[in-house]
Amino acid sequence: MRLPSSRQLSADLEISRNTVAAVYDRLIADGHLSSSDRSGVYVRDDRTGLERDRNRVTGPNPRESDMRWRNRLSLDAESLFPAALPPDWEKYPFPFFEGPFDRSLFPVQEWRDASRRALTVSEIEDWTGDVGDADDPMLIDELRRKILPQRGITARPEEILVTTSAQQALYFATELFVNSRTVVGLENPCNPELRTVLTRKRARLEHNDVDEDGMILNFDRLGKCGLLFISPGRQRPTGVTMSDERRKALLDFATQNEIILVEDDYQWEADFATSNSVALRGAPGGQNVIYAATLAQPLAPAVRLGVLVAPAPVIRAARKLRRITSRHPALSIQRTFAHMLGLGHYAAALRRVEQAFADRMAALREALNYYLPTKISILPTQLGAAAWITGPPELDANRLGKAAEAYGALIEPVDAYYAERAPQNVFRLGVTGIPEDRIREGVSVVAKAFRESLDLPSLESKFDESRALSGAALKRACSGATLLCKTVYGDPCTIVLARNGDMNGRAGFANEEQDTGKWWIDDDYWCRQWTEWAYGETAKFRVMITGDRIQWFNPSGRLIDWAVIVRANGKKATKPENQELAP
Amino acid sequence: MRLPSSRQLSADLEISRNTVAAVYDRLIADGHLSSSDRSGVYVRDDRTGLERDRNRVTGPNPRESDMRWRNRLSLDAESLFPAALPPDWEKYPFPFFEGPFDRSLFPVQEWRDASRRALTVSEIEDWTGDVGDADDPMLIDELRRKILPQRGITARPEEILVTTSAQQALYFATELFVNSRTVVGLENPCNPELRTVLTRKRARLEHNDVDEDGMILNFDRLGKCGLLFISPGRQRPTGVTMSDERRKALLDFATQNEIILVEDDYQWEADFATSNSVALRGAPGGQNVIYAATLAQPLAPAVRLGVLVAPAPVIRAARKLRRITSRHPALSIQRTFAHMLGLGHYAAALRRVEQAFADRMAALREALNYYLPTKISILPTQLGAAAWITGPPELDANRLGKAAEAYGALIEPVDAYYAERAPQNVFRLGVTGIPEDRIREGVSVVAKAFRESLDLPSLESKFDESRALSGAALKRACSGATLLCKTVYGDPCTIVLARNGDMNGRAGFANEEQDTGKWWIDDDYWCRQWTEWAYGETAKFRVMITGDRIQWFNPSGRLIDWAVIVRANGKKATKPENQELAP
Repeated sequence: MRLPSSRQLSADLEISRNTVAAVYDRLIADGHLSSSDRSGVYVRDDRTGLERDRNRVTGPNPRESDMRWRNRLSLDAESLFPAALPPDWEKYPFPFFEGPFDRSLFPVQEWRDASRRALTVSEIEDWTGDVGDADDPMLIDELRRKILPQRGITARPEEILVTTSAQQALYFATELFVNSRTVVGLENPCNPELRTVLTRKRARLEHNDVDEDGMILNFDRLGKCGLLFISPGRQRPTGVTMSDERRKALLDFATQNEIILVEDDYQWEADFATSNSVALRGAPGGQNVIYAATLAQPLAPAVRLGVLVAPAPVIRAARKLRRITSRHPALSIQRTFAHMLGLGHYAAALRRVEQAFADRMAALREALNYYLPTKISILPTQLGAAAWITGPPELDANRLGKAAEAYGALIEPVDAYYAERAPQNVFRLGVTGIPEDRIREGVSVVAKAFRESLDLPSLESKFDESRALSGAALKRACSGATLLCKTVYGDPCTIVLARNGDMNGRAGFANEEQDTGKWWIDDDYWCRQWTEWAYGETAKFRVMITGDRIQWFNPSGRLIDWAVIVRANGKKATKPENQELAP
Repeated sequence: MRLPSSRQLSADLEISRNTVAAVYDRLIADGHLSSSDRSGVYVRDDRTGLERDRNRVTGPNPRESDMRWRNRLSLDAESLFPAALPPDWEKYPFPFFEGPFDRSLFPVQEWRDASRRALTVSEIEDWTGDVGDADDPMLIDELRRKILPQRGITARPEEILVTTSAQQALYFATELFVNSRTVVGLENPCNPELRTVLTRKRARLEHNDVDEDGMILNFDRLGKCGLLFISPGRQRPTGVTMSDERRKALLDFATQNEIILVEDDYQWEADFATSNSVALRGAPGGQNVIYAATLAQPLAPAVRLGVLVAPAPVIRAARKLRRITSRHPALSIQRTFAHMLGLGHYAAALRRVEQAFADRMAALREALNYYLPTKISILPTQLGAAAWITGPPELDANRLGKAAEAYGALIEPVDAYYAERAPQNVFRLGVTGIPEDRIREGVSVVAKAFRESLDLPSLESKFDESRALSGAALKRACSGATLLCKTVYGDPCTIVLARNGDMNGRAGFANEEQDTGKWWIDDDYWCRQWTEWAYGETAKFRVMITGDRIQWFNPSGRLIDWAVIVRANGKKATKPENQELAP
């Protein structure tokens, strides 16, 4: 890894360049750094795991130029949000995540109808009437008349700003009210992306634990806060609803102490047909609450709209902030969604989504009760599309996740939601990306992994000549197969092994890294060569396949890498073994 | 105005609460503040211009609760971007601004066709395949194959991020690379929204003047910079193109000194059919330049897309930043625009827009040459849709703007573009919002205002009983008329006087403030009462109307306010007086 130039580092640290040069010289003399006249100063790599990187089968290597940029970036892209869903989640037969977009529930006909109406000549004339910072007046009107009143909120047009997401609305609140001297209260666990935003602003954070009645009110701690972020409707991520007593006490305390409350009305749409609860902003005394919500959550990748509701001076400032940071959400989308609301299409689509998710959650609870009846507890939630599950104290949920992944099931680890005191035995199962009829089988393999991960100390296995595949068997198993794995950074990586020997790899949460290569069989060895990854070198491995897990060993029998293998017919071999697992 | 509580202020300043209380007590004793047990400490308003505010005819008053919020907001929404276009610009017959959306040029049929294709069931399946942070692969592909090569840019998919605007791309660059220790180079004049973003980050700014060859290279000054924002293709806002010599020298210097260049490829689309210039990022040695551009500028309110092109590690970080600040631009829009590109619809629409703007610019130059031949100079630009005009040294462009507005012409002042040394005699005329056949007449009234503003010391006029309107004339003039004016903050305000005596007001750049009221005639007085504005009080005025300007005087003959009046038939009275003005 290359170090910053002495000029750069002295500027960053505000110390003299001579000091930096002296330190570099000492570290070179001590053998920690090495220098090259032309290209700068490097960390010596003698003792690093470079050899392992060169041998890696499955991922790209970081390039030297990448390291140079990383030194100057204020955001460490590698370490954030480990809970993000891998882009190839659909290849897994049992993706128990909350958040994936269920395309089968997308209201295609209704959206096309609304879109057609928004795109007549006279409509275009109408929604392009204002320029600059205004939102579509028809959407504002629909929000005021149909959406916000369902949460008990009355708002004037000057109290509403359309955003691309609840996240953007929350971001605006931090940009407007938070600096390094601000004490900010958060829930623990909470939305990790919000916490990252606040950490970047160097805010002083106060974490407040959550129980089955929502955030616990510790007035000593809250009294220090100038701003408090809270998700009372459905706590993000646990899904619990804050009790009325706590809501009232919190509103009173915040008013008396001039604490600004920022309400994240997480997944409010899932509630509004069946629940009577109103938003904090809609409650008596809530008129100064800053309210953020995503609109059209089930249509999110297509629509991407959110809303910020706040006192007019706040909206006025947020509108300017929107102008300098992003501009307004596309007006054609605003108008199309306004028609979805106006025609009642959206309400109908939402009922279908709600019914589907309710059915899946029922199936999930039933399966959990059947396969893991005495082992777990589920946090009580009224509705929603995910279960927050606590296992026995000895459970390591991260190990469970890896074991489940080897059986084709993705479960959501929860570490990233916690600022502190993350429990090791908690995980989350979501149903927005899995059809109802796969839930039982999926839970059965999670249960299998659950039992294994409590018993087995390690997933690594030793090379066993008797179980290693022959060249012919290897060729059969790999031709047309897809490999699902992780890069050294923990990013997802997908490799497709074509029958003709071509090999195609994509890595990163947005498939940012891509490479092609060749694979072939030589005697009983599996061989590969990438164009750029793994330094473009040829390498050969012995291979074992156990269930859905493929493992590569070097010629001396050391495990180099492993992946989930999805066979050419697209099916997993794994079947639920009910007899073995059911009580 | 209410001051922060002692608790709040002591926390903000990190001093003891007793200190704050002692200071407040002293200021109260000295008569600067006043206190009220129940509602806090206020600035005494005895000596402020409150009386004038109460009398204002045309705008809303700030409310006390607004002031309280403003004390806690980190962004002063009132003072930013005075150059923004008023929302009612279309009511002005001669809006010489650049930027308004010309709806007559919107490719309605083509957009509908592309939209229809993006919304088939199988297409929706396709563009919703990824979740989370990925952009539409079809749009990335079209950008790589069709758009970026026109600017000389070759980019891999992992080097491209779709944003909502060039502004968002620039914002990401500042968030990733700028902190309070960063020295940032800017052009002077430059994009004021970018400067605001950098000021909010407390960056140390170095301003670089611009001449007819683009930004002037002062290597002493540039050598201090870690980052430099530049718009070499069409300088923003002057429109000049940077010479090849300077581009090459800048790239060499930046490479040697590890200065990160951020290129704003402002209005690149206007160039690509006719110009051979490539972007800085496309030039030899430009592979580390960070490139930002708006896509589909002529369709901006509907489409709202931009692009960031940069080395892969930068894009990787920017993608995470996009996730925590806004999410990705709606995928339905991305796919629809990809079809616009794929079908060739966009290229055809762009040719029409370019031709229309070129015709208007020709008409503008011809008219300026006819009406103001010896008075002004225009900065040479190859293309574009605005002229950067320098008048004689004694010209006050702000006064010119006010005088022109009274004749129904909006011109763009340029102060806001300058960080320092803003010239008083420069203004800008843009043609994106005015049809070709109104340009001559528009320039004739600008020329009239131009001559007046050079001769007349003041726009204010004395009350003249002989020219004041009678009650009957007042009623005729005001019934059904629209008044265009400014609030005390300089925000635009529109008031509609209905024939039945109702009165309707909207103020702010996004019409955030609204009120209703009554107007009537009492003897020769014009009377009004708002529901909330002007404290809801009744007030009466004598009125003079001169051309398109209406002026209100209080009963003692003092000028209280003025506005542009648009009569009920929607026409301005003003006609070009060619004989008088033509040379």
